[in-house]
Amino acid sequence: MKAVAVTPGTPNSVHLEDIPEPSVDQVPDGKGVLVRVLKVGVDATDREINDALYGNAPEGDDYLVIGHESFGIVEAVGENVRRVRVGDYVTATVRRPGGSIYDLIGTNDMTSEEEYFERGINLRHGYLTERFVDEEEYIVRVPEGLKHLHVLQEPMSCAAKAVHQAYEAQRRMKVWRPKLAFVLGAGQIGLLTTLILRLKGIEVYTLARGAAPNLKSEIVSGFEATYVSTRETSIAELVAKSGKPDLIVDATGSSSLAFEAMQHLGHNGVVVWTSITGGDRSVQVPSDAVNLHWVLGNKLLLGSVNANRDHFEMGIRDLALGEMMYPGVLEKILTNPVDGLENYKEMMRLLVEDKEALKVYVNVAEV
Amino acid sequence: MKAVAVTPGTPNSVHLEDIPEPSVDQVPDGKGVLVRVLKVGVDATDREINDALYGNAPEGDDYLVIGHESFGIVEAVGENVRRVRVGDYVTATVRRPGGSIYDLIGTNDMTSEEEYFERGINLRHGYLTERFVDEEEYIVRVPEGLKHLHVLQEPMSCAAKAVHQAYEAQRRMKVWRPKLAFVLGAGQIGLLTTLILRLKGIEVYTLARGAAPNLKSEIVSGFEATYVSTRETSIAELVAKSGKPDLIVDATGSSSLAFEAMQHLGHNGVVVWTSITGGDRSVQVPSDAVNLHWVLGNKLLLGSVNANRDHFEMGIRDLALGEMMYPGVLEKILTNPVDGLENYKEMMRLLVEDKEALKVYVNVAEV
Repeated sequence: MKAVAVTPGTPNSVHLEDIPEPSVDQVPDGKGVLVRVLKVGVDATDREINDALYGNAPEGDDYLVIGHESFGIVEAVGENVRRVRVGDYVTATVRRPGGSIYDLIGTNDMTSEEEYFERGINLRHGYLTERFVDEEEYIVRVPEGLKHLHVLQEPMSCAAKAVHQAYEAQRRMKVWRPKLAFVLGAGQIGLLTTLILRLKGIEVYTLARGAAPNLKSEIVSGFEATYVSTRETSIAELVAKSGKPDLIVDATGSSSLAFEAMQHLGHNGVVVWTSITGGDRSVQVPSDAVNLHWVLGNKLLLGSVNANRDHFEMGIRDLALGEMMYPGVLEKILTNPVDGLENYKEMMRLLVEDKEALKVYVNVAEV
Repeated sequence: MKAVAVTPGTPNSVHLEDIPEPSVDQVPDGKGVLVRVLKVGVDATDREINDALYGNAPEGDDYLVIGHESFGIVEAVGENVRRVRVGDYVTATVRRPGGSIYDLIGTNDMTSEEEYFERGINLRHGYLTERFVDEEEYIVRVPEGLKHLHVLQEPMSCAAKAVHQAYEAQRRMKVWRPKLAFVLGAGQIGLLTTLILRLKGIEVYTLARGAAPNLKSEIVSGFEATYVSTRETSIAELVAKSGKPDLIVDATGSSSLAFEAMQHLGHNGVVVWTSITGGDRSVQVPSDAVNLHWVLGNKLLLGSVNANRDHFEMGIRDLALGEMMYPGVLEKILTNPVDGLENYKEMMRLLVEDKEALKVYVNVAEV
């Protein structure tokens, strides 16, 4: 069957590969779920893997099937599968367990090991193919009513984890009722984070470069949040009007903005960093002032990557609530479909060239 | 009665003030505790208040009694006091509640208000006097067996909070078993933090400038931790030998070291900042690399200031355990006694000039 793959270590090696059909028996103990792929989303990670910045093939193979944002339909299940049935719509988690204590309890996203096993990213094949099989544990049901949001499940899981980690860390406060949040960046993670925070009743300012109105500002407004163009208003100017936020989520891809965020946080607040910043830039930080205010204000910063099964389930819950609260807004994120695996070159072109594309995804098969 | 006070706003104004005797009836509802002061510790905060960098007088007064590290004996109690009796040794917490939700639940150290009420620091008189009165809520009993550690109770409460906040924030991990910690700085907070971490069975490296052997290295070794002179070994060199730590507590007073700590933390780890860095220094940070590793490794940073009643009680518990585990080590921190409130000039001289002084304290009255 067809798959879109790269040759790890070789830049711009994206190609169509003929790979073996999977079968439900490949998973032991009758726990296998065979999924027919319907749609797969791609993002900067896929682009960077094609740039050979990272990404390794599974042992024994010289190619890596890419694509980690999956949406499909269950085609067969092993005899001991209980969570899903044939015909269910599903997505799949990305990271597979290593050997750390965090992997043993199902929080593979928190592995303390240096080596990651991630489908479509590192050492495990991804979903940009016709079918895949995996253990029931990693297959998450998507309600039929959310099938029009298909490939948003995985990015939503990452946004859900980022926000949930902030709340979990804030259990140190005994009580935490954030009222004001800034989301830096209005890509898919920034927009989905905006939704999650709005659904908690938080006043949200979502900051991005482009002048409004544009698609991003339209989606932000659709979630009853406020879009701020940083070309017109600096973070400091916004703070002068809004006050210091209780929570700042950075999803800009810019480490200098990530550090700047530290200067604008309110007392007892949290900054969450979510961006993979692979460069070697450095930045001058007013260290005495940040250190001082961080201590006097009991402030907290955390990094968040990936997501586990719980975060997928949280994300799906919030997609459902989001559709009830702001019907029709979420699907505006799904900007750029590409038809068929064989159109992988167009897919990669959109990823690399189209700066306006919020979400590039491949229609692999009919829903 | 005598008190050591400053005139807020006037540098180097430390002087002896004659202030009214307190009485147990000044606290409403029969909740007053009158304490005869035995010893008071001083630290950089008192020095900086005397430098007029911060510190305000209580409303209606033009002086501020300094000293926030108290040790005394209960001389009288109101009719509704249940926690302590006449003759008990006690210390007192420092911050008094404001109006935020955190103050309402007894976590004044976490107030979200900008204005602090702190005895001996801001808007409330301190303990460098002969007697003080306060509500039972703020008086913490010290077991007689720990009276030789007298003024260590307050700094210990701050160290206890710093470590406890790390553990509380790490509840986000579901399970956290740190094995390796670095403590940056071997002043009183660094040394007490070293003890707390050792009592949790963590391997601890305590880093400070001075070449070993010296008093600090002797105390660190006494706690079965490893003293590292940063003149001989950089943090990076230490990491090359020890591996990346799960926890780093910065108590150096240097914001550049506070930020450098971020570069050396292990996966899922925590950096805690505890220093008041009042200058305006800035530092160049490898922002892309720190941001990237912070995200990929789910790392966390928090600032910690002050302490509430719970942290005083935790600290006292660990001082007791510390005496059982490492008898005779803790009292080595108590380096520089000064006899009598009238010797306040010598007290301030030691604070300003004696760089080797680990703990300057005043013997106010006989135990």
